[in-house]
This record gives sequence, C-alpha cells and structure tokens, in this order.
Amino acid sequence: MKVLEEKILSKGTVLPNNVLKVDGFLNHQIDPELMLEIGKEFARRFKGKGITKILTIESSGIAPSVMTGLVMHVPVIFARKKKSQTMVDDLFTTAVFSYTKGERQEISVSKKFLSNQDRVLIIDDFLANGEAAYGLAKIVEESGAQLVGVGIVIEKAFQKGGDRLRSKKIHVESLVAIDSLANREISFKKHKEVQFQ
Amino acid sequence: MKVLEEKILSKGTVLPNNVLKVDGFLNHQIDPELMLEIGKEFARRFKGKGITKILTIESSGIAPSVMTGLVMHVPVIFARKKKSQTMVDDLFTTAVFSYTKGERQEISVSKKFLSNQDRVLIIDDFLANGEAAYGLAKIVEESGAQLVGVGIVIEKAFQKGGDRLRSKKIHVESLVAIDSLANREISFKKHKEVQFQ
Repeated sequence: MKVLEEKILSKGTVLPNNVLKVDGFLNHQIDPELMLEIGKEFARRFKGKGITKILTIESSGIAPSVMTGLVMHVPVIFARKKKSQTMVDDLFTTAVFSYTKGERQEISVSKKFLSNQDRVLIIDDFLANGEAAYGLAKIVEESGAQLVGVGIVIEKAFQKGGDRLRSKKIHVESLVAIDSLANREISFKKHKEVQFQ
Repeated sequence: MKVLEEKILSKGTVLPNNVLKVDGFLNHQIDPELMLEIGKEFARRFKGKGITKILTIESSGIAPSVMTGLVMHVPVIFARKKKSQTMVDDLFTTAVFSYTKGERQEISVSKKFLSNQDRVLIIDDFLANGEAAYGLAKIVEESGAQLVGVGIVIEKAFQKGGDRLRSKKIHVESLVAIDSLANREISFKKHKEVQFQ
C-alpha cells in the first residue's frame, strides 16, 4: 500500500532492537483519513469472503479495525488485555507474550460475541513474532468460528510471525511488509515478492 | 442523541453498583456505523470552534474519537495507560483513578503531539466521576494548548463528573445523559433540561 509506505518513510523512525516507531499516525497519534484508506484496502483484499466479524486487540488495533468494519458493514470486537468490571460473562481467554512490553498478558473476549456461525477477520497494527495474532486465532478456534484471514497494517517480514501464521495455512494480508530495519534504515519488501508468495 | 438512547435501551444492561454495560456496541464489541453517527454528532456540536486535535484515552475512547477525527479532519491522540517501548520522548503524565478497574493509573501523552498552538477536544465513552476527563484536561493545560471542550458518549448525570468539569467552565457535551440506574432501570435525563443547563 503505497500511501502507507510513504507515510512510514516520512513519519516513521527506527529505534534500536528493530523497533519501528509510527506513533505519529498509527499507535499514539492517529491519522483518521489514513485509517479509512487502510479499512478500504482490507475490505478490498478480503472481499467476497463472507466476513461477519472483525477481531482485534486493544489498543492500537482498534482504529484500523473500526474503519475496516465501517467499510465492510460488520461489527468489531477488541480483545481486552485487562478485565473490566463489566466483563462478567463467560470469556474466551488465552495468554500472549508482548515483546514490546516485555510481559505475558491474558487476553479475553466475551463468549457471546463469537459463535460457530461467524466468519472472522483478525486485524492488528503490527505483525512481528505473531504472538497477538496467534492468540486471537486461538480464541477464534475455541469459539468454533471460521478464521477467514489476518489483516496486518505493518508486517516485520524479517521476524517469524508471518511464517508462523502462514505455515498454519492462515491467509495473511499485510498492507506493508518490512524486509529490514538494519542500520536503522527502513527497507520494504518488493511488492511482487509479496504478491507471488 | 435518540439513536444512541434506543441502542442503550435495546442492548445495554445495568449491573449492580450503577454500572451500565454497553459492551455490545461501544466498549468491547463496537458498532462502526454507530461510531460514525457519534462522530458526526460531536462534529456538529463543536463546529466552528477551530479544533486542531482530539484527545482521548485508551481503549474505549478510541473508536468514537477516530470517527470524530475523520468527520472533523483532525488527528486523534490517545493517552496511554501503560508506556510502550516506543514511548521514548518527553511525556505529559498525570495520575487518574479508575473506578471500573479499582486502581490508580498513570496516563501519558508524548509532548510532541500537543503544543500551545492546539485547540483540543477531549472525547471519551463515559463520564462518571470525571477522573479520566479531568486527567486529560490537566494534560491539555500542561501542554499550553487550549481546551475547547469535552465530548462524552454517555454521561452518568447522577455522578459528580459532569458538575466537576462544568464548575471549571469546561464546555461539556454529552450525547446521552443518564439520570438514574436505580433498580437496574435506565432513565435518561430529558433533552430540554440538558439544553437549558
């Protein structure tokens, strides 16, 4: 997605340990128009797949997911990392390790929002080691719903998450795939490579 | 906002201790079309005020905020409750007490996203005791930006938050104001009362 690559090049910065900082438009300050374009692109890539629900995880997945839900006319569920006072229903729960936060977290979704009638698209802002997406996929599996695919805004293609999901025959679509952040330079995977994979 | 009142009556439930559960469309599962309507309504109520930024707090404030930002063509910042690995810049930080989670939390915003040139609209899903909105207002004040107003999706008008903000001459707009949740029944404040306050 060219507009997103340009935004990453103009506004993103690389921190040590292969951390890409995109807090100017994606995960602290948010560019709503860009989120809508992202939503349109996910809707285009998963068109005709009969998706009934989008599943994401708080907090950075919410903005791209809600725009995708708007375009696709389906509800969005965000998995909670911390149970709130109103989460009194039965829950699907799984543990995921957050490398950015350096801790293991339980993520939960109320059982009443996913059923074996649902066809689910998982969306998240980043795919690196795949922990969050994998945890969400486990919740979808536990619910009996069909996992249609995983839509990722920025995939760090040099980390293992993409392979981990694709090796399970999960359909992963990344709007941008980053090949390398070495020497604090951003290098994108060529589009054709991504298409023909 | 009539469509929102109807949604609350049809999908909301009241838990003990005056907790209104709206996890079917606002803060766990999200209805994106309703969020867009909410965004349009906030944009209408704060039209012509020269707003340059929307400020909210993760996670439930993000969906209504990002839709409002889309309609108003301004960026959205969400305050973080937990510092991520990429929050390496100088931060505005304040402590707020979360009654729903029963704990004190630090909330933070990168200094680079708020300046004394900004005119800020704070948006949140609920206003009860006003802790979150008040904390966000303190961050706006610390940044030197102008606080234009506070937009709330659901105000619990029987709790002290609204008075607390309005007594500081802050312009608060609630899309729905709830008068009482006594006996686990939802009673809305009459529209005219809200208008003439």
